[in-house]
Amino acid sequence: MSVVKSTLSDDARKVVGEALQGALVDLVDLSLVAKQVHWNIIGPRFRSVHLQLDDVVDTARAYADTVAERASAIGVSPDGRAETVAKTSGIDTVQDNWIKDAEVVRVVTDALGAVIARMRERIRVTDEPDPVSQDILIGLTADLEKHHWMFQAESA
Amino acid sequence: MSVVKSTLSDDARKVVGEALQGALVDLVDLSLVAKQVHWNIIGPRFRSVHLQLDDVVDTARAYADTVAERASAIGVSPDGRAETVAKTSGIDTVQDNWIKDAEVVRVVTDALGAVIARMRERIRVTDEPDPVSQDILIGLTADLEKHHWMFQAESA
Amino acid sequence: MSVVKSTLSDDARKVVGEALQGALVDLVDLSLVAKQVHWNIIGPRFRSVHLQLDDVVDTARAYADTVAERASAIGVSPDGRAETVAKTSGIDTVQDNWIKDAEVVRVVTDALGAVIARMRERIRVTDEPDPVSQDILIGLTADLEKHHWMFQAESA
Amino acid sequence: MSVVKSTLSDDARKVVGEALQGALVDLVDLSLVAKQVHWNIIGPRFRSVHLQLDDVVDTARAYADTVAERASAIGVSPDGRAETVAKTSGIDTVQDNWIKDAEVVRVVTDALGAVIARMRERIRVTDEPDPVSQDILIGLTADLEKHHWMFQAESA
Amino acid sequence: MSVVKSTLSDDARKVVGEALQGALVDLVDLSLVAKQVHWNIIGPRFRSVHLQLDDVVDTARAYADTVAERASAIGVSPDGRAETVAKTSGIDTVQDNWIKDAEVVRVVTDALGAVIARMRERIRVTDEPDPVSQDILIGLTADLEKHHWMFQAESA
Amino acid sequence: MSVVKSTLSDDARKVVGEALQGALVDLVDLSLVAKQVHWNIIGPRFRSVHLQLDDVVDTARAYADTVAERASAIGVSPDGRAETVAKTSGIDTVQDNWIKDAEVVRVVTDALGAVIARMRERIRVTDEPDPVSQDILIGLTADLEKHHWMFQAESA
Amino acid sequence: MSVVKSTLSDDARKVVGEALQGALVDLVDLSLVAKQVHWNIIGPRFRSVHLQLDDVVDTARAYADTVAERASAIGVSPDGRAETVAKTSGIDTVQDNWIKDAEVVRVVTDALGAVIARMRERIRVTDEPDPVSQDILIGLTADLEKHHWMFQAESA
Amino acid sequence: MSVVKSTLSDDARKVVGEALQGALVDLVDLSLVAKQVHWNIIGPRFRSVHLQLDDVVDTARAYADTVAERASAIGVSPDGRAETVAKTSGIDTVQDNWIKDAEVVRVVTDALGAVIARMRERIRVTDEPDPVSQDILIGLTADLEKHHWMFQAESA
Amino acid sequence: MSVVKSTLSDDARKVVGEALQGALVDLVDLSLVAKQVHWNIIGPRFRSVHLQLDDVVDTARAYADTVAERASAIGVSPDGRAETVAKTSGIDTVQDNWIKDAEVVRVVTDALGAVIARMRERIRVTDEPDPVSQDILIGLTADLEKHHWMFQAESA
Amino acid sequence: MSVVKSTLSDDARKVVGEALQGALVDLVDLSLVAKQVHWNIIGPRFRSVHLQLDDVVDTARAYADTVAERASAIGVSPDGRAETVAKTSGIDTVQDNWIKDAEVVRVVTDALGAVIARMRERIRVTDEPDPVSQDILIGLTADLEKHHWMFQAESA
Amino acid sequence: MSVVKSTLSDDARKVVGEALQGALVDLVDLSLVAKQVHWNIIGPRFRSVHLQLDDVVDTARAYADTVAERASAIGVSPDGRAETVAKTSGIDTVQDNWIKDAEVVRVVTDALGAVIARMRERIRVTDEPDPVSQDILIGLTADLEKHHWMFQAESA
Amino acid sequence: MSVVKSTLSDDARKVVGEALQGALVDLVDLSLVAKQVHWNIIGPRFRSVHLQLDDVVDTARAYADTVAERASAIGVSPDGRAETVAKTSGIDTVQDNWIKDAEVVRVVTDALGAVIARMRERIRVTDEPDPVSQDILIGLTADLEKHHWMFQAESA
Repeated sequence: MSVVKSTLSDDARKVVGEALQGALVDLVDLSLVAKQVHWNIIGPRFRSVHLQLDDVVDTARAYADTVAERASAIGVSPDGRAETVAKTSGIDTVQDNWIKDAEVVRVVTDALGAVIARMRERIRVTDEPDPVSQDILIGLTADLEKHHWMFQAESA
Repeated sequence: MSVVKSTLSDDARKVVGEALQGALVDLVDLSLVAKQVHWNIIGPRFRSVHLQLDDVVDTARAYADTVAERASAIGVSPDGRAETVAKTSGIDTVQDNWIKDAEVVRVVTDALGAVIARMRERIRVTDEPDPVSQDILIGLTADLEKHHWMFQAESA
Repeated sequence: MSVVKSTLSDDARKVVGEALQGALVDLVDLSLVAKQVHWNIIGPRFRSVHLQLDDVVDTARAYADTVAERASAIGVSPDGRAETVAKTSGIDTVQDNWIKDAEVVRVVTDALGAVIARMRERIRVTDEPDPVSQDILIGLTADLEKHHWMFQAESA
Repeated sequence: MSVVKSTLSDDARKVVGEALQGALVDLVDLSLVAKQVHWNIIGPRFRSVHLQLDDVVDTARAYADTVAERASAIGVSPDGRAETVAKTSGIDTVQDNWIKDAEVVRVVTDALGAVIARMRERIRVTDEPDPVSQDILIGLTADLEKHHWMFQAESA
Repeated sequence: MSVVKSTLSDDARKVVGEALQGALVDLVDLSLVAKQVHWNIIGPRFRSVHLQLDDVVDTARAYADTVAERASAIGVSPDGRAETVAKTSGIDTVQDNWIKDAEVVRVVTDALGAVIARMRERIRVTDEPDPVSQDILIGLTADLEKHHWMFQAESA
Repeated sequence: MSVVKSTLSDDARKVVGEALQGALVDLVDLSLVAKQVHWNIIGPRFRSVHLQLDDVVDTARAYADTVAERASAIGVSPDGRAETVAKTSGIDTVQDNWIKDAEVVRVVTDALGAVIARMRERIRVTDEPDPVSQDILIGLTADLEKHHWMFQAESA
Repeated sequence: MSVVKSTLSDDARKVVGEALQGALVDLVDLSLVAKQVHWNIIGPRFRSVHLQLDDVVDTARAYADTVAERASAIGVSPDGRAETVAKTSGIDTVQDNWIKDAEVVRVVTDALGAVIARMRERIRVTDEPDPVSQDILIGLTADLEKHHWMFQAESA
Repeated sequence: MSVVKSTLSDDARKVVGEALQGALVDLVDLSLVAKQVHWNIIGPRFRSVHLQLDDVVDTARAYADTVAERASAIGVSPDGRAETVAKTSGIDTVQDNWIKDAEVVRVVTDALGAVIARMRERIRVTDEPDPVSQDILIGLTADLEKHHWMFQAESA
Repeated sequence: MSVVKSTLSDDARKVVGEALQGALVDLVDLSLVAKQVHWNIIGPRFRSVHLQLDDVVDTARAYADTVAERASAIGVSPDGRAETVAKTSGIDTVQDNWIKDAEVVRVVTDALGAVIARMRERIRVTDEPDPVSQDILIGLTADLEKHHWMFQAESA
Repeated sequence: MSVVKSTLSDDARKVVGEALQGALVDLVDLSLVAKQVHWNIIGPRFRSVHLQLDDVVDTARAYADTVAERASAIGVSPDGRAETVAKTSGIDTVQDNWIKDAEVVRVVTDALGAVIARMRERIRVTDEPDPVSQDILIGLTADLEKHHWMFQAESA
Repeated sequence: MSVVKSTLSDDARKVVGEALQGALVDLVDLSLVAKQVHWNIIGPRFRSVHLQLDDVVDTARAYADTVAERASAIGVSPDGRAETVAKTSGIDTVQDNWIKDAEVVRVVTDALGAVIARMRERIRVTDEPDPVSQDILIGLTADLEKHHWMFQAESA
Repeated sequence: MSVVKSTLSDDARKVVGEALQGALVDLVDLSLVAKQVHWNIIGPRFRSVHLQLDDVVDTARAYADTVAERASAIGVSPDGRAETVAKTSGIDTVQDNWIKDAEVVRVVTDALGAVIARMRERIRVTDEPDPVSQDILIGLTADLEKHHWMFQAESA
């Protein structure tokens, strides 16, 4: 039973709810991964990439909040707990310990690439049932793809 | 082998490093738990507690960063990944789904209480080996205890 | 005859113009209704809901301006006069006099629900004739649905 | 029966309450009229008058809030609903459709003139029963008369 | 003998000086009382009222300064010392220890009511001898009566 | 013939217009006198009084503008030209050349005293014909009397 | 060969890349044209239109950057060099020398009209291959059409 | 019985609670004393010391709030009422009436000296039972000793 | 005898002192003239020119201060009193009473032209004796000539 | 025929006008070139140089505006259109497509070097005819040479 | 003889005074060394390290001020003159002339390491005689060790 | 061999480089001297002069940076190390220990006088070889002479 009534049909809410829940987990994990390498990066490019990673964290945190509250707004309870993130994230586990700057760039490029691919799919499936949720996914994908380009350019 | 040389002895670094790593995990989890109930809270006190929870999130995120970078500064690689948080946090797993405001207040009071007890112990063990790290732990405990009081007062 | 030339065809302009005019009236009335209960609310939740209502007022005023100027931009003169609002708004007349906080939450939830349902329809009809106007309607519906969730959560 | 106790006598509250209710309706309507012509103005002075009108809107909205909350403060429930504004405003109905800049200046000058005349009377009748409410009416009249001068100077 | 020469006659200065001295004591005590319950409040409305009380403190502190400096400006030395406040304040002593939110609302409503009644009298007696001081008393009474309404609405 | 129509009667406008014109000239001259000694002051208290004088300049400039625009608002053309100020100001001519700090304090105290005495009279004569203009004169007199006290306290 | 990998197919990237490159050139030229007449405008409306043109410059520069970085993000190298702009812009060459205000309004209305028509086509062709790029084009077209309305209203 | 549960033992809470209660009273009184002489100071150094005293007030008010909320956080109800301050403050009663600048400097130096001596003792007794409260007392003592130096330097 | 010692020779100081004193008087009068027409302007361009004049006032006031303090810095007492300005300004007396917008533009263009011509001469004579003072005169002439262009463009 | 009258002689205006027109074209092109490589840069130093280039863009845009408005101020119509920039800029055409970071640094160093050499000549020729324009050219050359040093240091 | 009376005993003041004087010299020299290499650094990492060095300068300057004023506060005159810094600093003399980026990182790492080691000793010796001064030394050591980590990470 | 290529000839660079290096040393020492007396000043004018000295520090630090980076920009490595400052500064060594306010004013007046005399000479010698560097020296001399006047006025 849903506490918050939705203006979506049950079918639409199910599809959109899954897309938003998936997006939430990916974004929370992206913020944790970016912080992890923000703290552990070493190498001549330390400062530049260290700062760049906090831009990714800002993006990930802001959209995680937007996406979770969008889920609530359509009557779907969001789940962003540590266990849920650890189990269902679309990002590969990043190594522990110090990590060289070039490796950081590679890891973050891959993480962004994985999240973007899933977001593209979520944009596709939400088009018909809820253009409002889709618009949020489109906006965040634009920002993620901008970060993706910058990290790719950095390793070119 | 440590990449960043420490001004602490190996023994001191081990004790302090463990304290900081534990603090990091607790603070990251606190930020995730507070966000989880920030999104799922229902009841007449919704808005008031919803906003109060973001104050807890701000505190937890700011100190998580401080503590992780302090670990790096003494030559200990910090670990704030989702899996590590899920496995080693001192906070009980919070329920999923919508959650009533009074229950939210109880859950957060307990979470803060658990983290504070562990912080108090960390203050004790770091006193001798590193007063610099201890001072950071003292400062964040003051802030956590202030949040703890407010949530307790709310359920009085 | 239109003073401002439109890049839309006459048919498209008619459909989109009606959608924007309807949205304008609903948003102006929403701002007046929210202010009315902002001033007349009584009860233990006075301060919390009083402040929350001003968030609704800010949203309603900002989008009323955006929507009216969008109408002008496609060559359709907008009408936001008191008489027009009183006669064509989609929101039920709110009672006069002091009003209890729980009743305020119910009244505003209903007002938002009524406006959102009409906005959803406007999103549907503007999709083909003008994706630019539609994008504005999608953006404001996201914000209205967020307020709608919060007021619903508050009475859960 | 009044929910909020007043420090005024019943007679004083009646006189002052009517003055404030009248002022509220005039100010809300002034804000709606100024927005209406802000959106519909055409002619070479478009930008200059378009911006000037938003200054009038800011004044009208800010004082509408002050006056309504002053009514509440003396135990009189304020009424700023669309219907009430449409029926009891002291401002003549403004035309719909595009409107030339010189005509806009004339319309707003007249609207301000009508409101000011009523405010002057309200200042007179509140002097004895409530100098606190009177002081608010004096302050807003000063601002309205400043706008009035500027629009007159513009058409000289 | 007065160090600062006044533009008021001796008689006028005496009447106005007493009014300002009384206002100063009431405002300082109001700020202390509001802080006292700001720290000691408990109950479900804790956060909402806790924040609201700091708005009262801000009002009381700002006007206490204005009123004291106005006394100096007319050549009357103001007295805002703890002993003077304790002995001559128009506010009843507030209880010590933790205090429930509903009781806090009642206590502050009463404190504001007592201060307002005295301010109304001060407005009356300063009208003739010094309209400049009276204008300050009118302005602060408007703000106090706004707070008074909000706390009354809260317990309705 | 007046370009800007007034809501005041001809008699009232004459009385109020003269009061405002007189206030304008005094305030412009006060700003010039304060700047003159701000530039020419010498002595151990140089910095403290140099800064204090700019506070007077700020007050004088802000109210000169308010008063002149108030004159325009009641249909009276204000005159703040150098010649008019030189001929009709109520402030004694200040000496040229360097001037000792104690002498500066004396000169400014006298200038403020002279202006305040005239403002008090203007408050008296505008009470009946225009409480709106009177309220502006009351407000600026409060600020001038505050500066007056501070300069007197400085030479005590 | 593309340095930055795209999440788009080669066909999609070609269509979207051309749309973005075209938009970039139009926006850079719009910023140069608006600055040219910002500097050379003469006539009674000088100040008003001079300022309005800088609003157009701000819009054009901000979106030129967004569009160019979007091209990079999908793996297409953007080209905004002077020669490219001079050769491929969709805006007619504006005259050199001083230019009367009414003529400036006409020139900028035409320039905006030409760019908007091309943007509408770009919105159409990018809908299917890349809704993310399309969303950016929709957003900037809304802003351009708002400027277009204002300049048209100005010459009505 | 304590409403707010403490992480301190009963013995520790008693010692620390007394230290914080004492600090609260001293800081509230310091703020009242500094304001009293801020209003009543006369002499050539008026402006400089008048401003300096508001720096002391800012320090005293900010730490009074911190100390009172710290008491609440360890489960001890703080008491900052006028009577309590008048009776238990560690600062000698300051004279009423106008007071010469050199005398003000002496009075405030003494008041700060008295409070600092008691704070030093509070730092000593809280070291063992609660390093978190002690850290707050250390921080405020540093600020008080900085003010103390400045007033001493001023009378050297 | 000069109180402030100069790093310039007596001859240089005399030449430069006269240039700065002349500049001071012109700038003070420019600020008074611009305010005078700021208050008295009428006509359709009222708002645009009214605002533009305050830009001139800001420029004139800021440079008057800079120039006067530069005179002091080279040991020459500056004179900016009303009588001195009235007698020695290089700007023709502006008419009193309401003044049409086109006439305002002409009057201010002439005033700026007259001041600029004298500033150009001052730049010439200070080149050899004091490049530091000359640099200030060059900077302010650039700003005055920018205002001059704008007012000329306005009447073209 | 010149619309804006100049305080310069015809000969002086010709020389200075050419210098300013040349400076304008160089600065507009510098802003376009810097943006071009800002978008197309690749390599490990991507982020650092990407940001540094926007500092160059800010400098170039701000001074282009200053220089163009200075030309207008001396009665010379400025020309900053795309065709004019493409044909008369002193900067070599930069390559299209992605470009490696080291190459970017070389290209921008060369572009700055070319512009600076021309600016140095412009400073020389404007010294006699117009020290006001020269002062602007000197100021911008200082900033360009600072950027030039930084890019040289970067490739050392 | 000490001008400023201390709340410390003579022995304590001697130990703490020496610690603070040593800290002051080290911090002033650190600010000079960091600026020296900020100006002379060359190499591909120029911009990144150039900016990072100003963060070190900000830290060093802020704490130098805090430490010097703390010395004054305990009655010990601080000495931060160039000669004293040159003779007693704990940092090795840095080379003159241009210096490669990798060498800069090494030099600053060493400088920070040397200062930190001495600060650690100062924390140890001030613990007993003055926890207030110690707390300042602990706080600044935390910041220095954070910079130290970043420079070490940069050369890893 | 110079790493950074200069647009100046070798002879010009030598003369200008020496002027800038001399200016750098004087400005760094001025900042150290002003801080030294900022910390050690005693006497009734303590606060006023203490604050004024930080204005000097701000000026000295800002220009030291500008001058050093200007040296780098013309290919001359700047030297601002403690030893260089101690050995080559043009300011007499200031005494250690507490220092009375009147003596502070004298010391700083002399220090500013000595630096200004050297700056005047540097302005003279850089005029021909580099007007860009000269312009920076002119600008900073204006600011130093303003401080010089203020300290002289203070001891008059």
